[in-house]
Amino acid sequence: MTQFNFIGAEVPRPDAPDKAAGKAMYIHDMAFPGMLYGKIKFSDRAHAVIKHIDTSRAEKLPGVRAVITGYNTPEIRIGFIKDNFALKRDKVRQFRDEVAAVAATDPDIAAEAIDLIRVEYEDLPGVFSPTDAMREDAPVIHETDLKGRPKTDNIVPVPWKFVTGDVERAREEADYVVEEYYTTPLIQQSCMGTAGCIAEFDLQSNLIIRTKTQIPFLAQNDFNQALKDMGLKGKKSRVIVPTLGGSFGTGLDTHSYEFISILLAYKTGRPVKIVLNREEEFTALSPRQPTETHIVQGCDRDGKLILRDIRMVLDNGAYTSWGATTPSVMMVPASSIYRVPNVFFKSTIVYTNNTYCQAMRGYGNPQVAWAMESNMDQLAEAAGIDPFEFRRINRNIPNETTPMGLKVSTCGMKECLESVAEKLDWKSICGKSDLKRGSASVCTTLVGSTPAKARGVGMAALFHVGGSGRVYRSDGSGIILKIDDFGDVTVVSGGVEMGQGFDSALALATAEALGVTQDRVKIVTGDTATCPWDVGTHASRGAFTSCNATIMASEKARKKIFELASEHFMRSVKSRMKKMKRKDPDFEIPDLDYETIFDPSDFDMKENRIFLKLEPDDPDLHAALEEILRAAHYKEQGTMVIEEAFYDPPNQMLDPRTGRGNMSSTYIVGAQGAVVEVDLETGKVEILKVAAAHDVGQVLNRQTLKGQIYGALAQGIGYALSEEYKTHEGRNLNPNFLDYKILSAPDMNFPIEVDFIETNDKTGPFGAKGVGEPGLVPTAPAIGNAVYDAIGIRIRDLPITPDKILVALEEQRQKRDSNK
Amino acid sequence: MTQFNFIGAEVPRPDAPDKAAGKAMYIHDMAFPGMLYGKIKFSDRAHAVIKHIDTSRAEKLPGVRAVITGYNTPEIRIGFIKDNFALKRDKVRQFRDEVAAVAATDPDIAAEAIDLIRVEYEDLPGVFSPTDAMREDAPVIHETDLKGRPKTDNIVPVPWKFVTGDVERAREEADYVVEEYYTTPLIQQSCMGTAGCIAEFDLQSNLIIRTKTQIPFLAQNDFNQALKDMGLKGKKSRVIVPTLGGSFGTGLDTHSYEFISILLAYKTGRPVKIVLNREEEFTALSPRQPTETHIVQGCDRDGKLILRDIRMVLDNGAYTSWGATTPSVMMVPASSIYRVPNVFFKSTIVYTNNTYCQAMRGYGNPQVAWAMESNMDQLAEAAGIDPFEFRRINRNIPNETTPMGLKVSTCGMKECLESVAEKLDWKSICGKSDLKRGSASVCTTLVGSTPAKARGVGMAALFHVGGSGRVYRSDGSGIILKIDDFGDVTVVSGGVEMGQGFDSALALATAEALGVTQDRVKIVTGDTATCPWDVGTHASRGAFTSCNATIMASEKARKKIFELASEHFMRSVKSRMKKMKRKDPDFEIPDLDYETIFDPSDFDMKENRIFLKLEPDDPDLHAALEEILRAAHYKEQGTMVIEEAFYDPPNQMLDPRTGRGNMSSTYIVGAQGAVVEVDLETGKVEILKVAAAHDVGQVLNRQTLKGQIYGALAQGIGYALSEEYKTHEGRNLNPNFLDYKILSAPDMNFPIEVDFIETNDKTGPFGAKGVGEPGLVPTAPAIGNAVYDAIGIRIRDLPITPDKILVALEEQRQKRDSNK
Repeated sequence: MTQFNFIGAEVPRPDAPDKAAGKAMYIHDMAFPGMLYGKIKFSDRAHAVIKHIDTSRAEKLPGVRAVITGYNTPEIRIGFIKDNFALKRDKVRQFRDEVAAVAATDPDIAAEAIDLIRVEYEDLPGVFSPTDAMREDAPVIHETDLKGRPKTDNIVPVPWKFVTGDVERAREEADYVVEEYYTTPLIQQSCMGTAGCIAEFDLQSNLIIRTKTQIPFLAQNDFNQALKDMGLKGKKSRVIVPTLGGSFGTGLDTHSYEFISILLAYKTGRPVKIVLNREEEFTALSPRQPTETHIVQGCDRDGKLILRDIRMVLDNGAYTSWGATTPSVMMVPASSIYRVPNVFFKSTIVYTNNTYCQAMRGYGNPQVAWAMESNMDQLAEAAGIDPFEFRRINRNIPNETTPMGLKVSTCGMKECLESVAEKLDWKSICGKSDLKRGSASVCTTLVGSTPAKARGVGMAALFHVGGSGRVYRSDGSGIILKIDDFGDVTVVSGGVEMGQGFDSALALATAEALGVTQDRVKIVTGDTATCPWDVGTHASRGAFTSCNATIMASEKARKKIFELASEHFMRSVKSRMKKMKRKDPDFEIPDLDYETIFDPSDFDMKENRIFLKLEPDDPDLHAALEEILRAAHYKEQGTMVIEEAFYDPPNQMLDPRTGRGNMSSTYIVGAQGAVVEVDLETGKVEILKVAAAHDVGQVLNRQTLKGQIYGALAQGIGYALSEEYKTHEGRNLNPNFLDYKILSAPDMNFPIEVDFIETNDKTGPFGAKGVGEPGLVPTAPAIGNAVYDAIGIRIRDLPITPDKILVALEEQRQKRDSNK
Repeated sequence: MTQFNFIGAEVPRPDAPDKAAGKAMYIHDMAFPGMLYGKIKFSDRAHAVIKHIDTSRAEKLPGVRAVITGYNTPEIRIGFIKDNFALKRDKVRQFRDEVAAVAATDPDIAAEAIDLIRVEYEDLPGVFSPTDAMREDAPVIHETDLKGRPKTDNIVPVPWKFVTGDVERAREEADYVVEEYYTTPLIQQSCMGTAGCIAEFDLQSNLIIRTKTQIPFLAQNDFNQALKDMGLKGKKSRVIVPTLGGSFGTGLDTHSYEFISILLAYKTGRPVKIVLNREEEFTALSPRQPTETHIVQGCDRDGKLILRDIRMVLDNGAYTSWGATTPSVMMVPASSIYRVPNVFFKSTIVYTNNTYCQAMRGYGNPQVAWAMESNMDQLAEAAGIDPFEFRRINRNIPNETTPMGLKVSTCGMKECLESVAEKLDWKSICGKSDLKRGSASVCTTLVGSTPAKARGVGMAALFHVGGSGRVYRSDGSGIILKIDDFGDVTVVSGGVEMGQGFDSALALATAEALGVTQDRVKIVTGDTATCPWDVGTHASRGAFTSCNATIMASEKARKKIFELASEHFMRSVKSRMKKMKRKDPDFEIPDLDYETIFDPSDFDMKENRIFLKLEPDDPDLHAALEEILRAAHYKEQGTMVIEEAFYDPPNQMLDPRTGRGNMSSTYIVGAQGAVVEVDLETGKVEILKVAAAHDVGQVLNRQTLKGQIYGALAQGIGYALSEEYKTHEGRNLNPNFLDYKILSAPDMNFPIEVDFIETNDKTGPFGAKGVGEPGLVPTAPAIGNAVYDAIGIRIRDLPITPDKILVALEEQRQKRDSNK
């Protein structure tokens, strides 16, 4: 194994102090001279015809500079299949539909103007569940398809399907089969920094937009298209990304509010800022896609999985964003977690009059993992096998291509499962390791004097893309490496630091690859004008691709530096020969030039010092980086060191017909487990301990990596126990953090044992895999399994709330009583 | 001659609309959350000991966040020889000396706090002219030299001297010799946008400073040194340049106000903005170095110059900035304009208690040109030769190395002189071409019924660096060229657009060199983090070096694009072969790959289209740039086109012992002439017409080039007739544009004939030379010579004001009367 200088260290993040101290500039902090404040009038109907919009009173309000609607602006189509519009005409299909917007000199005036806009609607019947939406007589939400032809159903034309083997025959052959329904709710990404942007045009009608995005370059394409739609031919956009207060997938698409601020900025000739408040962030951004899953799994007598049949229905909401593509990632674990020969996966995505959905960390995996990993425990129980053992039997192994075509190279699933079992003291946690799990009446630890609390343990595993995931034709990341003659290195990257530790990973990787100390490295991101192209920061790809790119660029830079060093060191050699000549007059100084004596590969650089590999201890053949660079810079017709690289991982787009393809250049696996205590009187689930073991390939910065896992666990536990975006007929009922409960630091008051398995993946930068998303994937089923272990009740619908537990406990009691 | 597509066109500047409409963001427009306003307490004495500074009342003022002096902050030395301090201790040496500063929440509070600071001084005798300062008993302004040893005189230790031949002997041999004294005044650069900066620290103590500078990378070095001085080891600065409202040399050095804002920002932990108001801009920035010149020139009977002896005394003011190095550029024309074998040049730079000086457009050349070109007319008159003829006799010629070692390659001086003479109708302008010039009594045109106005014509020539001027060890400019897969090109440059048209030149040059249309090219400058290193924009070098760099980078990019095109076009070739095969089954499709068929040099690109040079009309062998780039990007493990280049011109540092060296890679020459009318009763000089002919090598953008010349003429005429920074015992008397008269558009209400001589210099980008400065160099002597032509009076001290003319006319009248 390579000995690293910096990789694997536990070091603070460069961006942390400014963020902790409130010094970092978020979009909320930005203001420009003459800036106007934009605000959006949202629909207050789930499904209705727009009869008339009266903006006259708003227009007359002093301080209002523009009022726009879909009727007085060019049509801008948005979203993954362009079934959405920046401003709506004719009808609204969800409560958050944008029907008008204003720009005013002051945010309060803008709010007042919005109130003054009167919209006359004619209500239409709404549908608020996929089941209802799929009925034959259901109201049709989109009257035409993407080609303008009449549409008669509510099915979103984005089908995902993967089949291998024959699940029907396998079902007949299986010794144990378990079939179940699971659901996951809408949840909000809950970024601390709400969404927003400031759009501005220069007087040549080119757009500058500062906006919260994870995809500056793809967003630039969308904005360029909008400029075309606005009739601004040949005009271009520049996207600048401010400090992000979390993004978690919200920044993976462009949003109506961005196009509205563009329209307002163009109309007023002024910068226009739109920042969503917390309520708007809840109601007008796109949450995680909710799912209904029908799952069947079966195994043979020895516990070997032989079939998995998953049919998912996704509530798309009224329009289509990247939520509709989450099945492409659901297929990854559905087809490939554990070794299973017969798989059927199919998703149906359905328009409803609910809020439309899009990406969130994990991108579909948490939804399907909830069903699969809960069902794994059910199947283990049916087969009479310990759930840990059952997983170990079926675990993924290295160097195997799954039926979907995923090339699993390194794979530490065995180590992850064993680590979690060990950390949780799996066999003895209940004190009764020989007892059958899932039987609350016997397998509980009685806490206190009365049996008011029951304790249980559960685990779950994960399988996810770990080497980027190709969802666009390019999956690349560029790097420009600029080294000044003081040896200070600027890494210019198109990636996005959204709180995950991207800058830190990139700085460490550059220091390591180049051979300089970390303090020499500064990261610059977030401007399409100066940064090299990057497909965006998603799919756990940020550090993976950008660190690979910086390694490539660093190698080029080292080569150039070593060429310059050759020239420089030649002087030392010559002076040494002169010395020899003085000592020994017979010594002939040969006529040498540096190119014949030195080859760049003779040199190495460590901690900003360049030396000859063969004579690392010869002080004459040592030089500081800045010494070499300054000499090269200061000679007549000198040079500076700037290198670039573009890394596009060796992975594939899925074949749309077969659903097959090696989507990621490597895969990440992991396991998590929890010990929980269920209060039998209140139904409350308390976490006593969590263990998480992840095959990360190689730790880059141990501190940020832990941060990734801790943060993901908080989200995963929220998904398991408390987070739910509640709606009534399409209207959100809990648009704030009092009624929508995310875990904060005080809620995380239990031991967390984190273990990183380093499998040293050959495609990864220094062996590392992408770790951004998977930390929250197995959390909810691990907890669900622990709850089952504690009380013998399997909650199928997330979140596992006290009321669901109390209802189930009451049912259990009644059943038990009736059995007596 | 090459046929250009864009070079030489007359096109609007990309930065013009936003500037014209007030949309561009100057430092004045910028604000950041929590920003404080800094203000400086300047000395109100010219020379005094600081006895005590009482800041207690200022500190107590609500809203004041910091009060600093030289006594409670680290010492930061600044300036060319580090004889200056950001904040003064012990004594003040000029009125503008910074003795204290505050940061407050509001600019008014900051101003009030400054008023509350009490400084107790003990006055010292001051010296306000070099003559006084060089007296033996003069008060010594700097008590110690740079090494801390006692200093007993006021001579600035920056001597400049150049000698060739033997002027003493030549003087004896000359047929005509004329000796004269000339002076030039202090003048202010008069930027429309006053100076200012906003300094801010991140919480790792790295500095971000937005500041008005022409030298972002050299300023970065100065700021990094200041961080070291402040004890912030290893901390670095990032310099961001806002839109500049003119700079003209003011941005060539770092300033006390910048370091003061840094100190205040560090102390308060907040962004601190210091912007000079107009009065402060006049009194606290560094104007153009004033000079006293003793000149002797001599020629032989045929009018051939045989000697030039120039001894200059420069009033340095109290400290040393880049004004003290202007003699290095004075030496260029002093040694090399016209062909003169014996030259003596020496400058003495003297400390006084006046304001210290620094660079201004032309960098010493206007001062020495005033003396030389006025004196040329005197010598011509002495020799009885027409001044135009006299200049033509002595003109510089191509392909000659001057005694200073300046390699004059191309040289259009003959064409420039002839153009001006023709445009001014030189021989007949007075209607009496046979009359001896300089005799007001005869050679005047009588205007009106009484001889109240006299008309005259004059000309002058110039010689200046035109291919950058190496004053630092690196004279380089870097370029990063980033081409996205829509074929949009971003040019990232370390140069500075300060109003001169840099962006426009660079955009045109890139479009031309790359083969794309101009609308595809965007320029990004002004950030040391993302831009490649550049020595700064000065010495008329901006377009010269950066366009050369973009040509280099474009060539690399074309090579890469053509390699990608080879692969792309191979598909066309293959499909064609398949067609042939279908027609003729005997045809054997050879097994070819693109590398064997195409070479990058087979391709060309024009207006965003790539084609085969040999078959430019074959539609199958044509492709849009974006088509090639997108194919390259979208293939698995694709690529993007980013190229960089660093151009360091083939020029030399001057040898400090001999004053010799080929400072610039090419030289620019030119001539200007004016027709003036002198009101004999008021003494007012009115310009009737101006002609300017410049050897520009090659026109890049004719519109911006004209702008350069028009602007320079306005400054040159101001230097000639109206601009004077008036002082009394070191205190400025006219710190505003009412009392300090620059020419504005209505003052330029006369015909200006501009002629560009294109000599196509081989080192220039497309043949172009640097044109930023020289437009103002010969203007004042041309006008002085015209005034002499009109009234027979030679004003030796700029500016040529009505009162000086009236006094001289009165003397002339008295002399004439006494001769009667």
